[in-house]
Amino acid sequence: MRKSYLFSPGPTPVPPAVLAANAEPMVHHRGPDFREVYERTLARLGEVYRTQSPVLLFSASGTGAMDSAVTNLCRPGERVAVVVAGAFGERWAKMCNHYELDVARIDYAWGERPNPDEVASAVRESGAGVVFATQSETSTGVVTDVQALKSAVGDAVLVIDAVSSLGAVPLETDEWSLDVVVSGSQKALMCPPGLAMASVAEPLWDRLPSSRSFYFDWKATRRAQEVFDAAFTPAVSLIRGLDVALGLLLEEGLDEACERHMRLGRATRAGIKAMGLELFSPDDDSSAVVTAIRTPAGIDAPRLLRDLRERHGVTLAPGQGALKPDVFRIGHIGWFDIFDIAVALAAVEVGLTELGAEIERGVAVGAAFEAYELPVAAA
Amino acid sequence: MRKSYLFSPGPTPVPPAVLAANAEPMVHHRGPDFREVYERTLARLGEVYRTQSPVLLFSASGTGAMDSAVTNLCRPGERVAVVVAGAFGERWAKMCNHYELDVARIDYAWGERPNPDEVASAVRESGAGVVFATQSETSTGVVTDVQALKSAVGDAVLVIDAVSSLGAVPLETDEWSLDVVVSGSQKALMCPPGLAMASVAEPLWDRLPSSRSFYFDWKATRRAQEVFDAAFTPAVSLIRGLDVALGLLLEEGLDEACERHMRLGRATRAGIKAMGLELFSPDDDSSAVVTAIRTPAGIDAPRLLRDLRERHGVTLAPGQGALKPDVFRIGHIGWFDIFDIAVALAAVEVGLTELGAEIERGVAVGAAFEAYELPVAAA
Repeated sequence: MRKSYLFSPGPTPVPPAVLAANAEPMVHHRGPDFREVYERTLARLGEVYRTQSPVLLFSASGTGAMDSAVTNLCRPGERVAVVVAGAFGERWAKMCNHYELDVARIDYAWGERPNPDEVASAVRESGAGVVFATQSETSTGVVTDVQALKSAVGDAVLVIDAVSSLGAVPLETDEWSLDVVVSGSQKALMCPPGLAMASVAEPLWDRLPSSRSFYFDWKATRRAQEVFDAAFTPAVSLIRGLDVALGLLLEEGLDEACERHMRLGRATRAGIKAMGLELFSPDDDSSAVVTAIRTPAGIDAPRLLRDLRERHGVTLAPGQGALKPDVFRIGHIGWFDIFDIAVALAAVEVGLTELGAEIERGVAVGAAFEAYELPVAAA
Repeated sequence: MRKSYLFSPGPTPVPPAVLAANAEPMVHHRGPDFREVYERTLARLGEVYRTQSPVLLFSASGTGAMDSAVTNLCRPGERVAVVVAGAFGERWAKMCNHYELDVARIDYAWGERPNPDEVASAVRESGAGVVFATQSETSTGVVTDVQALKSAVGDAVLVIDAVSSLGAVPLETDEWSLDVVVSGSQKALMCPPGLAMASVAEPLWDRLPSSRSFYFDWKATRRAQEVFDAAFTPAVSLIRGLDVALGLLLEEGLDEACERHMRLGRATRAGIKAMGLELFSPDDDSSAVVTAIRTPAGIDAPRLLRDLRERHGVTLAPGQGALKPDVFRIGHIGWFDIFDIAVALAAVEVGLTELGAEIERGVAVGAAFEAYELPVAAA
């Protein structure tokens, strides 16, 4: 009977209409019923990416799309630059090392926001022709200005991990000339995990080397998608859900969804600060995806999360890496409204109180509503 | 309102309990709720594979597991042998060529059954240390005796594509000393597409080179699975469905499921022959997975399939490659019983009659029931 509340920054809650589409009876992936869904899904992905270039769809985790970028763009020994400011930047670096690229790391402390001009000059110094970066670093809540980054790095090919940001913060693939943008289904796209995407700007196609991956071969994937087929049997039920979810997102409007996420972040921060807690993620409107928070002195973050989950059915996310003991995160990506934030804040308040933390009680939810700018009736 | 009937040999029909599991509200993949499901699913996979060695689970199409075998076992330039007797043998060959292995093809005509002793002597001649083969060649309906094949090739590492056969025909991974067996969720495992598996025999682990794929890295995947985690966010909803589906399969009993598939194949062939049609797949009990049938002279197979789909809502599968114009296939993999075969045969009879084919009418369904050995009440 106990209700469950999910504030993980991926997988995120899935709307009932999407779950229902996931559960429709199976159809053949080459039949006309599915082809129609597939064609529409690919078109909607282009709308959400805001690109005329192909968006390739893979049956895989988001990491699969990241893998496809490394294996389709780069040859062994090639000089590349990787911006590392958290766990997902580390993943780019690990992957580039795995594929024996010559990696120039551009390191920032976890929680710092990479500076586009600094990055660009480090890239120039390194001699790298391809740059891997992260739009929303889910481990820290930091969102990088990828428009400025592309302007700054100029002719270098810029590959953006937008797994947790696509649909939550502004991303203009074509207008900002982003070369490659990878994403996944299980964040702001409000779907279960299992689908990954990569947009590949038209000018790149003529100079791609042959893919180092068979499964993630961009050219083979594009050829299949051009006739609304998939290179290999696609995840039919997940794609049907994605079709519905993208429809919901476009119905709300992409700009409106980004505005909503921005206000959800604002509301979360206002509530957290009203409680007297310290933010780990930046205290500005760029923090629209996930809010990272320091636990008060003497409070063990993993203990707080375990209590909330076991006693109250509320799942928040732990800090990653070295942040684990004293940082926790509230994801507000995808299918969230201000009432969800009220639940998350109320849960944090209850959990901290139970652990004996000295916090301001009874003010967080009101502060959140005020920051969200939803009028609350006077008492 | 029109009902739909799916006889594709993948994706196959998904039982309602599995669809319902696919549609459960999202949970975090590292929370205890999901961990329990994941642990049970991995254990059940071992039972279905009949192996004590790890079965690695990937969020990908079945081809992803094939890719993992090539990239984790072989180095560029390595001599390997590939048994090619249909579209999926061709896929092994294409993939091995893509990864720049030195490929010795062992070719059979599509529809022929590879002979284990012949294959073994070709392997010895080739000097290959790794052999790629297909248990159930879905394009032709031919099932290879992989137990005999392993005995014959001896010390060579044998990699078996069991995508369409696992759960439908006997497969004793450990007893037959099969080195690597890859499969997928969307065939006899009765799930939507999007999950792929590979069992890797214990003795291989010590001599694996480093993986050429990051996403499909066997060692990293094993390390994560040993603590019931996944290397990357797994396809949570599909895994929940797989847990339920494997439970159904094990509840029926693996031997019983294989016996059922054998009898479904027998029933299908009996019905087809009673109509006066010619089988393309072998007319013996090995043809338990999919039945391939030649259309009568003058009847275009794609036209028959289109009519059945558009007029009657019945999806059969086309012939692949050169077989397209005059072969069609009835899949009976996974969630099928004899009444489904009655539908498929009745549909073929109706479709061929509408196209003016001279066939024996009114006898196929009765012949199928008789061959299945289900008593039909006397009139």
